[in-house]
Amino acid sequence: MTITSARETGNAPSGTPTLRDGAFGPARELVCRECGTTRELGPHYACHECFGPLEIGYEFGTVTREQIEAGPANIWRYKALLPVPDDIETSPNTEPGFTRLLKAEHLAAELGLSSLWVKDDSTNPTNSFKDRVVACALSAARELGSTVFACPSTGNLANAVAAAGARAGIETVVFIPSNLETPKQVNSAVFTEKLIAVDGNYDDVNKLASEIAGEEDGWAFVNVNVRPYYAEGSKTLGYEIAEQLGWRLPEQIVIPVASGSQLTKVHKAFQELIALGLVEDTPYKVFGAQAHGCNPVATAYKDGVDAIRPVKPDTIAKSLAIGNPADGIYVLDITRATGGAVEEVSDEEIREAIVLLARAEGIFTETAGGTTVGVLKKLVETGQLDPAAETVVINTGHGLKTLDAVSSAVGPYATIAPTYAAFTAARIA
Amino acid sequence: MTITSARETGNAPSGTPTLRDGAFGPARELVCRECGTTRELGPHYACHECFGPLEIGYEFGTVTREQIEAGPANIWRYKALLPVPDDIETSPNTEPGFTRLLKAEHLAAELGLSSLWVKDDSTNPTNSFKDRVVACALSAARELGSTVFACPSTGNLANAVAAAGARAGIETVVFIPSNLETPKQVNSAVFTEKLIAVDGNYDDVNKLASEIAGEEDGWAFVNVNVRPYYAEGSKTLGYEIAEQLGWRLPEQIVIPVASGSQLTKVHKAFQELIALGLVEDTPYKVFGAQAHGCNPVATAYKDGVDAIRPVKPDTIAKSLAIGNPADGIYVLDITRATGGAVEEVSDEEIREAIVLLARAEGIFTETAGGTTVGVLKKLVETGQLDPAAETVVINTGHGLKTLDAVSSAVGPYATIAPTYAAFTAARIA
Ligand SMILES: Cc1ncc(COP(=O)(O)O)c(C=O)c1O
Ligand SMILES: Cc1ncc(COP(=O)(O)O)c(C=O)c1O
Ligand SMILES: [Zn+2]
Ligand SMILES: [Zn+2]
Repeated sequence: MTITSARETGNAPSGTPTLRDGAFGPARELVCRECGTTRELGPHYACHECFGPLEIGYEFGTVTREQIEAGPANIWRYKALLPVPDDIETSPNTEPGFTRLLKAEHLAAELGLSSLWVKDDSTNPTNSFKDRVVACALSAARELGSTVFACPSTGNLANAVAAAGARAGIETVVFIPSNLETPKQVNSAVFTEKLIAVDGNYDDVNKLASEIAGEEDGWAFVNVNVRPYYAEGSKTLGYEIAEQLGWRLPEQIVIPVASGSQLTKVHKAFQELIALGLVEDTPYKVFGAQAHGCNPVATAYKDGVDAIRPVKPDTIAKSLAIGNPADGIYVLDITRATGGAVEEVSDEEIREAIVLLARAEGIFTETAGGTTVGVLKKLVETGQLDPAAETVVINTGHGLKTLDAVSSAVGPYATIAPTYAAFTAARIA
Repeated sequence: MTITSARETGNAPSGTPTLRDGAFGPARELVCRECGTTRELGPHYACHECFGPLEIGYEFGTVTREQIEAGPANIWRYKALLPVPDDIETSPNTEPGFTRLLKAEHLAAELGLSSLWVKDDSTNPTNSFKDRVVACALSAARELGSTVFACPSTGNLANAVAAAGARAGIETVVFIPSNLETPKQVNSAVFTEKLIAVDGNYDDVNKLASEIAGEEDGWAFVNVNVRPYYAEGSKTLGYEIAEQLGWRLPEQIVIPVASGSQLTKVHKAFQELIALGLVEDTPYKVFGAQAHGCNPVATAYKDGVDAIRPVKPDTIAKSLAIGNPADGIYVLDITRATGGAVEEVSDEEIREAIVLLARAEGIFTETAGGTTVGVLKKLVETGQLDPAAETVVINTGHGLKTLDAVSSAVGPYATIAPTYAAFTAARIA
């Protein structure tokens, strides 16, 4: 994300918002991730000292397991840990989260792991983890008085923004690369009139969004000018995994990386749970997953460097096709600090991993999940992941959105006439 | 469902199963829905006196709200009311249910209703309510020692069976009409090698399945020879709606009708909750929804007759395209007895209702949900539904599976170059 200070001052989602008390719940301020400078809560996303990205700073009260467990079966059970008001459940939203954490015994056996779990976010309202972040961005847009709810997107985010905006009754405009998969296009257009196809790749679309955010009043671009609020939504993946494991952390976790936001926020969630005494402080390793055709973070990791060199994406994993990842450097920090790694797989390995997960566990993932499961496999094969340690892999999206990735690989076993004779002739069993 | 007694005796999912204690939880016997004759629990589905369909009879212990609320966020929270063993959570299954019940204020306003809820089963593991029934059928197949888990299907059921079987590690064979939508085909084939396309409509496929069930040993056809266990899974829709409303019944409910099983089981669930004292005994009206192109039950309802004349389906609502519905007569009984109705809508109304629901509430439904929402609209317009009474409409499936129904109606608003000038020229906002 390229940020200029000129834009930053001009792009308030509303002109001069007056915030109501408790608009952002336990959030207290915005903190620069680079230099630590703080700033008041508001429609800001870049540090006025160093242009570094701002992140939410909190003052948490006492938060107990019992309090969380008594909450609804969606992300709002963690509202005491999110930048949202205490009455968040009362305004229409998609109620995402609290998705399944499945013990994956067959996949574990296939890969030679002793204990494996799949956190399955394909069953979210619009079938990806993006519903979590968008729900938090929607709350911020509402509190800031924004009039347009928007995003640049590789597809899933547009689905989530368009759906959440429809449900909330706020105007939505979503921008996507014009070469995006049809299912992801229809899955946005059904919710909003304003699906805008842009001739360019995601990084072009993102740049355009930053420009619009800088020029137009009242636009809340979820992952641009309300990004600090938006990004916190991914923490709920980390909270849920810990709670669903019985309030403890896994030893290893494998997470897909596009901008890198999700990975950094799952780590932040684990750290918060430790600090609040909600889980024991046990060591865990964080692994990042990229596609070979868009591997800027994996490349930096392998080269042992700190700077990320942008790439031009060319992969079937279009939802991960961010060539210039905003949070890539933090992914490097976290994976290195925890003893994890960032690995990559080819498009062919992605396709194979989609079918592997489906046949082993009955979960149909999109190319992003194929990337993550493919990387999990490679990490085991290359000895980077300890097969005896408990592992969680996150499935962030749904296979129905990237059907083409597998539709040539799988199909009917036989086409028969509707007779028992035809059945026996086909030697089906 | 045509049943002959010769078949019925020959089609045990396993030769001579020895049931373990508690294999079917609170279930005590099988009861004929026509003549009341009872039979021991086992792989039976037809009465040996009158060939009528068998249903599960229970002896419920004390079941409290607190006990249910302390359970998992899936259908097993109601295991004390289902024909499943007490340790059901420990064997791999897809963990369906406890889906969102959304207050639909925008849709209510559009239709002129004062209080409307959408029960959204599109977020189930394979994106339809079928995961509920299949989870119960899987348990039965396991307890009965079946070796093949199978179904004839209009699409969604095949997805659910193939996924659940993969997760459970049991061989699956799923039969579908060969003209089925590609997404539903791929969404089965990804989970199982044995997707069998049959040249015929659903009723042909169903007849073939009955034949195979009668000839082959060890095959559990979820909706044929383990149908009594399977069908109970739909009760969980009714339980969840009541619990999520705060342990009370809605005044009106609109439910899609294919075989008619779901509608009858939601009613059964409400009756059980009343009998157990878990909800107050308040009146409710049950409405059934069909497509004009497959309207055997709606026709019988309107004609005021008791017998259902089979039809040859021709509608975009392929998941509801059952021309000879097994439980159609019970749908007539229930809708008439409660003061509801069975209504139908055209394919065009189905398409419009899909977009209406998406734009109003951010929910992308398939043609079955379009049928149900379309019928809701028609019931209000024709004065059959009381706009002042609290209403629940069930969305049973996902729009990504029937993309073609809307892909020509919605699409990008504009395709632009990645520049701010192109953005302003397109007059997007
Ligand atoms: C399905 C899916 N998984 C993972 C990601 C990666 O998210 P992040 O940008 O937070 O790294 C995305 C981002 O678009 C996505 O759509
Ligand atoms: C999405 C969907 N909704 C509703 C139904 C109707 O179910 P039933 O056969 O229980 O009437 C089906 C059945 O196939 C379905 O797939
Ligand atoms: Zn700074
Ligand atoms: Zn009988």
